[in-house]
Amino acid sequence: MIKVGIVGGTGYTGAELLRLLVTHPGCEVIAITSRSEAGRPVADLFPNLRGHSDLVFIKPDPARLQGCDLVFFATPNGVAMTQAPELLAAGVRIIDLAADFRIADQGVWEHWYGMRHACPDLLAEAVYGLPEINRQAVKQARLVANPGCYPTAVALGFLPLLEAGLVETEHLIADAKSGVSGAGRKASVAGLMSEAGESFKAYAIAGHRHQPEIRQTLSQAVSGDVGLTFVPHLAPMIRGIEATLYARLNDATVDLQGLFEARYRDEPFVDVLPSGSHPETRSVRGANHCRIAVHRPLDGDVAVVSSVIDNLLKGAAGQGVQNMNLMYGLSEDCGLNHPALLP
Amino acid sequence: MIKVGIVGGTGYTGAELLRLLVTHPGCEVIAITSRSEAGRPVADLFPNLRGHSDLVFIKPDPARLQGCDLVFFATPNGVAMTQAPELLAAGVRIIDLAADFRIADQGVWEHWYGMRHACPDLLAEAVYGLPEINRQAVKQARLVANPGCYPTAVALGFLPLLEAGLVETEHLIADAKSGVSGAGRKASVAGLMSEAGESFKAYAIAGHRHQPEIRQTLSQAVSGDVGLTFVPHLAPMIRGIEATLYARLNDATVDLQGLFEARYRDEPFVDVLPSGSHPETRSVRGANHCRIAVHRPLDGDVAVVSSVIDNLLKGAAGQGVQNMNLMYGLSEDCGLNHPALLP
Amino acid sequence: MIKVGIVGGTGYTGAELLRLLVTHPGCEVIAITSRSEAGRPVADLFPNLRGHSDLVFIKPDPARLQGCDLVFFATPNGVAMTQAPELLAAGVRIIDLAADFRIADQGVWEHWYGMRHACPDLLAEAVYGLPEINRQAVKQARLVANPGCYPTAVALGFLPLLEAGLVETEHLIADAKSGVSGAGRKASVAGLMSEAGESFKAYAIAGHRHQPEIRQTLSQAVSGDVGLTFVPHLAPMIRGIEATLYARLNDATVDLQGLFEARYRDEPFVDVLPSGSHPETRSVRGANHCRIAVHRPLDGDVAVVSSVIDNLLKGAAGQGVQNMNLMYGLSEDCGLNHPALLP
Amino acid sequence: MIKVGIVGGTGYTGAELLRLLVTHPGCEVIAITSRSEAGRPVADLFPNLRGHSDLVFIKPDPARLQGCDLVFFATPNGVAMTQAPELLAAGVRIIDLAADFRIADQGVWEHWYGMRHACPDLLAEAVYGLPEINRQAVKQARLVANPGCYPTAVALGFLPLLEAGLVETEHLIADAKSGVSGAGRKASVAGLMSEAGESFKAYAIAGHRHQPEIRQTLSQAVSGDVGLTFVPHLAPMIRGIEATLYARLNDATVDLQGLFEARYRDEPFVDVLPSGSHPETRSVRGANHCRIAVHRPLDGDVAVVSSVIDNLLKGAAGQGVQNMNLMYGLSEDCGLNHPALLP
Repeated sequence: MIKVGIVGGTGYTGAELLRLLVTHPGCEVIAITSRSEAGRPVADLFPNLRGHSDLVFIKPDPARLQGCDLVFFATPNGVAMTQAPELLAAGVRIIDLAADFRIADQGVWEHWYGMRHACPDLLAEAVYGLPEINRQAVKQARLVANPGCYPTAVALGFLPLLEAGLVETEHLIADAKSGVSGAGRKASVAGLMSEAGESFKAYAIAGHRHQPEIRQTLSQAVSGDVGLTFVPHLAPMIRGIEATLYARLNDATVDLQGLFEARYRDEPFVDVLPSGSHPETRSVRGANHCRIAVHRPLDGDVAVVSSVIDNLLKGAAGQGVQNMNLMYGLSEDCGLNHPALLP
Repeated sequence: MIKVGIVGGTGYTGAELLRLLVTHPGCEVIAITSRSEAGRPVADLFPNLRGHSDLVFIKPDPARLQGCDLVFFATPNGVAMTQAPELLAAGVRIIDLAADFRIADQGVWEHWYGMRHACPDLLAEAVYGLPEINRQAVKQARLVANPGCYPTAVALGFLPLLEAGLVETEHLIADAKSGVSGAGRKASVAGLMSEAGESFKAYAIAGHRHQPEIRQTLSQAVSGDVGLTFVPHLAPMIRGIEATLYARLNDATVDLQGLFEARYRDEPFVDVLPSGSHPETRSVRGANHCRIAVHRPLDGDVAVVSSVIDNLLKGAAGQGVQNMNLMYGLSEDCGLNHPALLP
Repeated sequence: MIKVGIVGGTGYTGAELLRLLVTHPGCEVIAITSRSEAGRPVADLFPNLRGHSDLVFIKPDPARLQGCDLVFFATPNGVAMTQAPELLAAGVRIIDLAADFRIADQGVWEHWYGMRHACPDLLAEAVYGLPEINRQAVKQARLVANPGCYPTAVALGFLPLLEAGLVETEHLIADAKSGVSGAGRKASVAGLMSEAGESFKAYAIAGHRHQPEIRQTLSQAVSGDVGLTFVPHLAPMIRGIEATLYARLNDATVDLQGLFEARYRDEPFVDVLPSGSHPETRSVRGANHCRIAVHRPLDGDVAVVSSVIDNLLKGAAGQGVQNMNLMYGLSEDCGLNHPALLP
Repeated sequence: MIKVGIVGGTGYTGAELLRLLVTHPGCEVIAITSRSEAGRPVADLFPNLRGHSDLVFIKPDPARLQGCDLVFFATPNGVAMTQAPELLAAGVRIIDLAADFRIADQGVWEHWYGMRHACPDLLAEAVYGLPEINRQAVKQARLVANPGCYPTAVALGFLPLLEAGLVETEHLIADAKSGVSGAGRKASVAGLMSEAGESFKAYAIAGHRHQPEIRQTLSQAVSGDVGLTFVPHLAPMIRGIEATLYARLNDATVDLQGLFEARYRDEPFVDVLPSGSHPETRSVRGANHCRIAVHRPLDGDVAVVSSVIDNLLKGAAGQGVQNMNLMYGLSEDCGLNHPALLP
C-alpha cells in the first residue's frame, strides 16, 4: 500500500482527491494537513465522506509527511515549491496539483504567477504529468507537475492536429468554459450563487495563466513556436470544462476522425466520440475521462474540436491519481474505473 | 455471478441501475430491454457508460429474461405486474422499481394508480423492500417491491419516533422536496429547464400516490392508523430529496438524538448526523445513504426531522441493488460503497 | 418628486431598490451611501444600472441624508436604529428594510438579534409595514419597519385562516424555502455556487429570527398567542420564497377558496390563484406580488396554503416601495406595475 | 394606440412580447392566436401575466388580424410566409420574429430551412430589422424580418471591426453560448432540466442556420464575402447569449476601444463597456441591451470581442418592440426602458 499524504485538504481539489483515495485499493492516506482546520475530522467539513474516512486534519508537519511514500500538494500556488526540496531529500515523491512546476521557463513562470520561484533548480526535473504525452517519464518521476484544468482539456484536443502537422500553428484559438468549482472553495462575492448562477461571461480575455502552460505543451508537440489565443469563460454549473478549439487546416482532405481515433486508441482516459458527436460535460462528471469530437464545419478549411473533462478529475485530482498509478506501477485506471454520474 | 436482466432501461432509474451494476463485482447484466431503443447500444443513449458497457437494448423477450436469476423492472407503473407471474414461474426473482407491488391493499392501489391490478394474488407475497424494516423478509423474497423515493425519505425519518411511540400519530406532516429527475426521462414542457429551473413550487397538494404508501409503512410501525399530510415540492436541481417532518411529541423530555442513533446504529445506509446538524442533499448525491437530523425547535413539543436521500439511489436504483445484495447473500453494501459526489 | 436617500446600497436589497426607483415616476434618489464603495458609480457595481443611473456612492453623510424626504435603510441589522432618531428629528421619514424596528417587544428583539436596542422608545411608534394589515397606519407613519421576507410570505398565507378563527392556533407549521439571494451579497463559502448549487437543505431548525416576527403578526391577528414551528430551507435558485403552511381546521366544511378570495379581493399585490393551483416562485420573479393557493388535502381537516413571493420584491425592496407609495399618497402600485420575468 | 396582433403566442418569444406590450404605453394587443390553446386566457398559461392581461387566445382568424395595424409572428419558421401576402394586402404591417424573411437569397434560405419559400417575391422588400444598421429602412418598412438571437449578438460585436476594414475577413470565428430558452417551449427530452442542467456542450458544429444569416450581415458590412466559423453552445441557464468573437487585425495599433465607443455612441441599446471589462449575460436579463467589450489579448494581433444579450429581448421580442417603435415614430426605447433583473 502506498502511504499517501495530502497537503492542503480543505479545497475542492483536496476533497476530490480524498474522495478518490478512500476507495482506491492501492493506497492509504495517512496524513492530511490544514492549518485552519487542524483537529477537525475531514468528514465534518465534507459530509459526503462520513463513514468513509476517519481522517482528522493535522497541522502541516514535516515529520508526518516524510513518513509518506507520496505527497500530493492541493495547495494554492507557491506552497509546494517551498516544501518540495526537503520532502524529495527525504525520499518522498511528489505530485503538485498546483502550478509551481508546470512551466519550465522560470522567467515565464515568475511573470505570470507574480512571485520568485523558490526552487528553480527543480524545474528541469519536474515531469509535466499529462500521461498522454509523458507516460514513461511520469513512471520514473520524483516530482510531477499535474497539469492545469484548462490546459488538459485544450492540449488533448489540439495534440492530434499538431503532432500530425495538419494545421497552421500561428493563430490557434481555444475558447474554454468552466464550472465554478474551478475557482476553488474560498469565500468570495464573485463566486456566490447569486452572482455566478444563471449567467455566463468571459474573463481574463487580456491574458490568463493557463495560456503559457498550454503554449508550452503545444510548442513541444510541434517542436516550435505556436500562437494561441485562449479565452476562458465562467459557466453557471459546478463541475465541467468544455473547450472549443479552432485551427486552420493545411490540408482539408485529411480524415480527422481517423486521425483522432488512431492517436487515442490506447489511451484509457481519452474517448474520441463517433463522427458528428458533441460531447457534454455531464458525460464525464465525476469521472477521469476526456471526451472529444472533431468536426470540419461546412466542409471548410477550419477544424473544430470540442473537448470535455471534469475539472476536478481529469483536470486535477483524477489526473493526479492517474499519475500516482503510473508512478507505482499500478494499473493506470486503478481506483478511477467508475462511470460518470448522469444525470 | 448473479445473472441480471433489466426491463425498461431508458429512464433515469434504469440508467442509474446500469451505472451501479457495471462496476458491481457480484453480478452481470445479461439483458436490458427497451421497445423504442432496441438495437441501440446503451452507451449511445447514456454517454457516461461509454467504455463501461457494451450492452445493446433488446426488444422485451421472455426467453432472454427467463435466463436471468434476477430481473429488475425499471418500467412505468403497470408493466411489472403483467410479466411477474411468468417470470416467477420460471424461477426468476424480481425487484420492481415501480409501484405495482408496493401497496398491499388492492383497492387502495387501484384507486391511486387508476388501473386494475393484473395479479392481485401476488400482493401478499411481495416484500416491501425497505431493508431497515424488512431485511429478513427481503433475503427470502421472490418478489421485492422497491419503495418509492419520497416514501423512503419520509419513512426513515419518522420510524424512530413512531416505533418508540413518542408522537401523536393523527396529524403527522411531511413536507418533501425533490429534484427534477424524479419526474423521469420523458419529453414534457413542465420538465424543461426553462420551466423548472430557477423556480420552486409545491404540487399535488390535494393528494399524491406516495401518501398511501407512506401511510402503510407508518401504520405498520405503530400497529394502527396514522394520519398524514404529505406535500411534495419540485426543487430546481437534478437529484436529491429532502423531507422535513413534523410531529407533536407526547413526551418532550426524551433524548431524540440518542433515540435516532440507537435505531440506526447498525444500518449501513442510514447516517444520523450529530446534534444540531442540517443534512444537505448533495452529501448523498450518487450515494445510497440517507442522512438524518432530528431537532426540537425552541425546545418545544414538536419534533422536526430532516432526511435526505438521492432519489435515484436510496430512492430507487441504489436501494434496488441493496435489496439484490440481501437476496443473494452478498455484503449489503457491495457495489454501493463509494462516497457521494461533492461538490 | 419625493427626494429619496438610500443608506447601504451595495447589497441585493439596496440594488433592487435602486432598480425599482430609477424608473419610478414619483421619486428621485438623491443620495446613496456606502462606506466601502464611496466614490464608485453604482452602475459600476451593478452593471444592469448602466445607462439608468449616474449615482455615485457617497460616504454616510448626515447632512445629505437630512435633505431627503425619505430614507431607506438597506443596511445590516443594527444600523438604522443608530441613525433613525437624528433623521426623524430632522423631519425625514424612514423605511427600514432591516429588522431593527420589526419586533415591538424590546426584550424579544434583543434576545434574537444579540445586541442592545439603541432607541427602544421608537419601537412603539414604528409601524410594521405589511400593507395588507397596516395600510392606514403606514400612510401616516414616520418610521416604517419593512417586514422580513419569510414573515411576509408566511403571514399573508396564514392571515385569512387566523382572522376567521378557523384553525387551531397552538401548532401552526410553516415550512419555508428561499433562494440564495436572501443570504445577501457578502463573501462566504456557504453561499458559493459550488456549495449552494444543486443541493437543498433545511437550516436553523432549532430557531430562526423570523419566528418571533411571524408569531407577533399572527398573534395580533387572533388577539392572542399562537404556537408556530417555522423551518426555513435553502433552495438552489437565486430569487424566490415558497412557504407551505399547515393548520388544523376547526371546521372542515368552510369554503377556503372563497375565504381567501374575499380577504384579498381588493389587495393590489396579493393574488389568490384558482382552486387547485400551485403557485411557482418564477411567477413573481421581479414582481411585487404574492401568489397564494389554499388546499384541503384528501378532504381532511388540515388546511395547506402555498404562498410565493420574490424575496427581494414583496419580501424587501418592492414592499418598501409599496410602503413609500402609501406614505406619500401615490397609487399603491406606482412604479411596481410590471409583470414578473418568466421564463 | 397601435392595434397589435400576435400570431403564435404560446412560445417564449410570444410570452415575452406580451410581457413587454402589456406595459407599453403606445400600443394595445387586440388579438393573440393559438390553435392549440384557443379559448384559454393567456394568464392561465403564463401566470406572470395574471392581473396584467385579460387576453384570451383565439383561433387564427384573418378577419381579426386584418383589423390590426401591426402583426407580430411569434411562430415556428414557415408560418409567416404563408400569411404575410394577405395581411400586407390588407394594409397590415408585419414583424416576423421567425426566420422566413431574414435571408435575401431564396436558394440559401430553402437549403437551410428545408422547405420551399411561399412568397419569394417579398424577400427583396423585407427589411432586416437590426436597427443599428437598418434604422431608416425599418421606419418605412411594411415587412420586417426580426434578426435571430445569435446573429444579433454576433453581428453587433463584429460590425465595428468590419465596417472599419480592420480585420481579415476570411476566417472570422464566433463562439456563441445560449441559455436553454432559445430552444423554445416545446416538449422534448433534450430540453429537460435533468438533461440540460449542470452541463455544457457545443452543438451543430457542422453547420447551423444562423451561420448564413450572420454571413449575410457581415458581408454587407464589407461589401464582399466573409468567411465565418460559427459554433453555438448550450449553457445551463434559462436566458442569455454570450458570443466571443475572434478576428485577426490588419493593424494592431488601432484604438479598438475608441472605435467601438464611436460606433455605438448614439445607439440606445448597445453599451460598450469600459476597457478591460467582461460583460455578463445577467447584466441584460430582461432588458433589450447588448453589452460589448473589446480586447486585444497579450497585445497581439487578434481582436476578441465579447457580446451579451438576452436572447428573448434584444435577440427576439425586445428587438421586435424596438422595431415597432421605429415603424410608428415612437421613441425607440418606448416600453423598453427598464433595467435588467440582477441578481
